[in-house]
Parts: sequence; C-alpha cells; structure tokens
Amino acid sequence: MSLPLGSGAEFDRIREIVRVLGSAGVGLGDDCAIIPHGQEFLALSTDTSVEGVHFRLDWMRLEEVGWRATAAALSDLAAEGAEPLGILCAVIVPTSAAENDLSRLMDGVGQAGKQMSATVVGGDLSAGPSWSVTVTVVGKTHAPVTRRGARPGDRLWVTGTLGGSRAALEAWRRGDKPSVESRARFVHPEPRIAAGKWLARHKARAMIDLSDGLAGDSGHLAAASAVSLSIDLSLLPIHPSVEREASLLGVSSQQFAAEGGEDYELLVVMPPEFESSEAFVQECGIPLTAIGSVETGASVTFHLDSRPIALKGFDHFG
Amino acid sequence: MSLPLGSGAEFDRIREIVRVLGSAGVGLGDDCAIIPHGQEFLALSTDTSVEGVHFRLDWMRLEEVGWRATAAALSDLAAEGAEPLGILCAVIVPTSAAENDLSRLMDGVGQAGKQMSATVVGGDLSAGPSWSVTVTVVGKTHAPVTRRGARPGDRLWVTGTLGGSRAALEAWRRGDKPSVESRARFVHPEPRIAAGKWLARHKARAMIDLSDGLAGDSGHLAAASAVSLSIDLSLLPIHPSVEREASLLGVSSQQFAAEGGEDYELLVVMPPEFESSEAFVQECGIPLTAIGSVETGASVTFHLDSRPIALKGFDHFG
Repeated sequence: MSLPLGSGAEFDRIREIVRVLGSAGVGLGDDCAIIPHGQEFLALSTDTSVEGVHFRLDWMRLEEVGWRATAAALSDLAAEGAEPLGILCAVIVPTSAAENDLSRLMDGVGQAGKQMSATVVGGDLSAGPSWSVTVTVVGKTHAPVTRRGARPGDRLWVTGTLGGSRAALEAWRRGDKPSVESRARFVHPEPRIAAGKWLARHKARAMIDLSDGLAGDSGHLAAASAVSLSIDLSLLPIHPSVEREASLLGVSSQQFAAEGGEDYELLVVMPPEFESSEAFVQECGIPLTAIGSVETGASVTFHLDSRPIALKGFDHFG
Repeated sequence: MSLPLGSGAEFDRIREIVRVLGSAGVGLGDDCAIIPHGQEFLALSTDTSVEGVHFRLDWMRLEEVGWRATAAALSDLAAEGAEPLGILCAVIVPTSAAENDLSRLMDGVGQAGKQMSATVVGGDLSAGPSWSVTVTVVGKTHAPVTRRGARPGDRLWVTGTLGGSRAALEAWRRGDKPSVESRARFVHPEPRIAAGKWLARHKARAMIDLSDGLAGDSGHLAAASAVSLSIDLSLLPIHPSVEREASLLGVSSQQFAAEGGEDYELLVVMPPEFESSEAFVQECGIPLTAIGSVETGASVTFHLDSRPIALKGFDHFG
C-alpha cells in the first residue's frame, strides 16, 4: 500500500509505519480515518499535544492548551465536511501538577467541544513526565471530502486568513509579547466545522485543514489527488499581525503566511463553476478566497508577483 | 451529573473532571463511551500507556508495548459486547529512539488489531520526553452491556484466570525473571472480544473488564448498578503462576489474584437462570467461573473460607 503524502521527516515515518502495518492498516493518510457505518460514514481523528513540543506553559494557560488540542482534532473533522459526534480525551498529567490543573485543562476541552456541539464522552488519565493531551474525535458524514478528488481545471480556495498563529509563535520565540489578535489565533483556533459542511454541500472536490501550513499541506493534497497546484501568493488572505513579524524576519508577508502552520483554516478545491463565495461569507462569517488552480502534473508551484518562489514546509515533529 | 465509580484517587480526579465539564461531558464512567448512530451504537474507548508508569522497556519489547496498549483498549470494547471497527494510535516518540523503534511498536499495535479483525485506520506522531502510546478504539453493538444492569438475585461470573499479570509484575519488582506464562499474561493480554459478544448474546446484565483488578472493578460495577456484590474468593480461577509469588509476599493466592490488575478478563453479571458455562467454554476456549452473587445494598464483600476479608484496589495512577 502506498501513501500519497508530501515530503518531510514526519511523513517518511508515517510511510514506514504503513509499510510495517501492511494489511493491519488501511485508509491511512487523510485528515480523518473514514469507516462506513450504516447509511453514513464515520470520520475519526486523533491528535496529540505535548508540552515543550506543541506548546509551552509560559505562553498559554492550561484552559487554552485544552481548547487548542480539541480544536486541532475537530479541524480534521471539518476538513472531511463531517459533523462532530463526540470527543475522547487522554491526558498525561505531570506529578508536579497542582490540584486543579487537570480541571482547568479539561475545562478548555469541554468549552471547545461545546462550541461545536460535541460532548466529551470518554477519556483516560495517566501520570507522566510532562503534560500531554491526546484528543480523539468522531464525526459523521454522508459523503466525506477526502484529499483525493482534485481535477485539472478546478480552483483552489482557502477560508479565513493565514499566518496569524505563526505571528504569535515568532513573537514568543523572540522573547516578545504577541499581539492580542495573533495570540488568539494560536491559543484559541476555531475549527471550521460549519465551513467544512457548507463546502461539502457545495460540491467540494478535495479538502485539507491547514495544520502544517499552506506550503506543506498543499503538497499533501497535490500528492493525494495526483495533480499539480499553482498558487498565486499575492492572492493570500493574510492575518493583520503578519506584516510586522514578517518584516522583522526579513521575508514577505505572503511567504511568512504560507510557511506558517497551525492556522486550522481549510484549503479546498472547488469545481470550476463555483463562484458563490459571498453566500459562504454570509453563512459562515469568514472569508473564502480563490488562491490558485489545479493543473495536470505532480507538484506545487508558488508565484509571487509573477515570479516562482520556493517555500519551506512546517515540520511539527522535532 | 454524578458519576458512579468506586473509591480511589484516580476516580476522584475523574469525578472532578465530570463536574467541570458539566453539560459538555455526558455518559462518562463506563468502559466505553456509547454513541447512538443509525440502528446501532458506537462504542469508543481511549487508553494511554506511559513508559515508566505502565511499562518499562527493560521488562518488555516495543512490539509488546504496542500489543499490550492495543489489547487494553480493545478489552473495553469486549466489556460492552461490542465488535471492533477500527483503531487509532497516537504515539509520543522520545528523541533518543532508534530508527526502527517506532515501526516495532506499531507492528505490535497492528498484530493485536489483526487478531481481533480491527485495522489501524489512523494515528498521530509526536516527539516527547519518553514513550507514550494512546490507543483509541471504535466498535459497534446493537445493545451495549454497561456496568449498570446488575439486579439482586443475579450471579457474578469471571472469564479466564486471574493474577497472572500481577505475578509477572511482582517478579520484576523483586529483580527476578517472571515465569514464561505470567510474562505472557502481562505483555500479551488477549482482549476477550469473542467472550464479550457471546455473553452479550446470552443476556449479560452488566459487564466490566478487569483492568483495575477484581477488588477495584467489582466496586465500580456495584456502584454503577447500585447493588451489593458478595464474592467468594475460594471460587476464583487462579493463574498457575500466582501461588509462588503470593507465598513470597505472604498473602493467600486468592487475595493476590483479586488485588492484581491488568488481567483484562471480563467480570460479568448473568441472570439467575444462566447456567450454560460449558457452551461458553466450547465456543470461546476459556473458562467462565461463578464467583459470587448480587444483593441489595451498596458495597462489595469478599469472603475466604467463610470469613470476610478486606482487599486493596489497584491504582494505576501514580
């Protein structure tokens, strides 16, 4: 079984796992696992956040850690156009934790679920060396939107704005305080459940959530669909906090936004005749922006001011 | 919402989480989360194994870590009488891991799944301070067997034999080598999927898997069903490796077995008229033993040679 993922050390590891599992592993390599059940499909995804790797407690409160981990998992349901059914949450609690730390974290998990009408139905608790939260979500859909349906001639769209989460991260890395807006994008991402369902209803051909960033995730979508993507970076909807952070790093806002991960927006391929982004904005309350096109081939090319530009993916693993 | 669990620090923490979640958490406190979907019910469970807390790598190989974590999660499906549909596996890999360590662990996950006809459908990888494996399983059932259906007059049964897993643990703790048989019980537990489905078909009233041990889990079942349980320890089916380890600790084999956790056998309440344990043995290949009765009240009492005996639960958390 081959696994159409883009490049990166994490994805090499996943490909190796798939080889080892052989027939014991099937359907790996989409945002969610899809299991047919009755008249519908179940969509499942599991997502781990580790202290010191995915978050630091001097950057965010435990409620925010819980929200963010849950939102990240729900975002995978959004990318299938699925509706959440329930949340399971396995927490490793460090022995140094204070009495109510776990309750604070679980409060964030519960709040994120509540906002998306998903209840916490189960979990597990363990002691361990540092905080870790593994959130598993289950949802349902009549027709999952995978990464595999893009066809030459389709157009590429993206929800919301990009780069806000990375803007916060770069400020923290510099020892500075992020802007309120960029911090909110990092600690309190909103899973695009309603947007994902709307796009699925409007014949989305392929969809992926932007956890690895546009530069990385566009590669996964292109590989899964066996197409090329041509993306015009000048069209990117960019978060207002990006400009300052990008100039401090000496890169363009467009490159900064495209290389930044964890915005949890949706990258979606719509058929050529799709134009109704205004109806989307009215119903979902966020922008939907055309940023490129689908072509024959097997690559992703980025352009800025008509010049090709090479981008770096965002590697969570390390 | 109140949560009928037995006593113990871990369960106090879970009760506090349930209080914090309020309406964002529902149905917590059974082996699995149960979600109605179509004509059936989905059963979901998530289970974390942490290096140094749940296992040590000088005791077992990484393939065995993967098998054991997966078997523990599948055991929760068994306790609902559910049939597995899929497995998700989130792994934290220490930065010190060798190149193929992750593949070895995933091989164990895949093998455990394969034996129970459950494929690995998804997962997540993170770096972190030490190994941790969170396995989430989803299954289906027409009528889940919860912990809540026991009624006075019913009888209490247990599958397989007890104490084998603890016998291995005590040998390791002593710095000794466990017997081959007890080691197999610890590193290679067999989730009782077929047994759980058989018992559900034969009108099981309530069921729980023995991860916390008979002393602890009988308390959860009694609390959930709002009944008393009376258990005759002289009837316990005891693993052959227990005798030596129990005598080294200076306790009876019965007490040793009842206080030992992680055997992953099923404790099941059957209606008074149930007698056909021979048909069970023929179909499932393991013993089914009557060990006590259900009475009115709200406690669990253990007897050995007609004398009441106080037992200690098995606390994973710490």
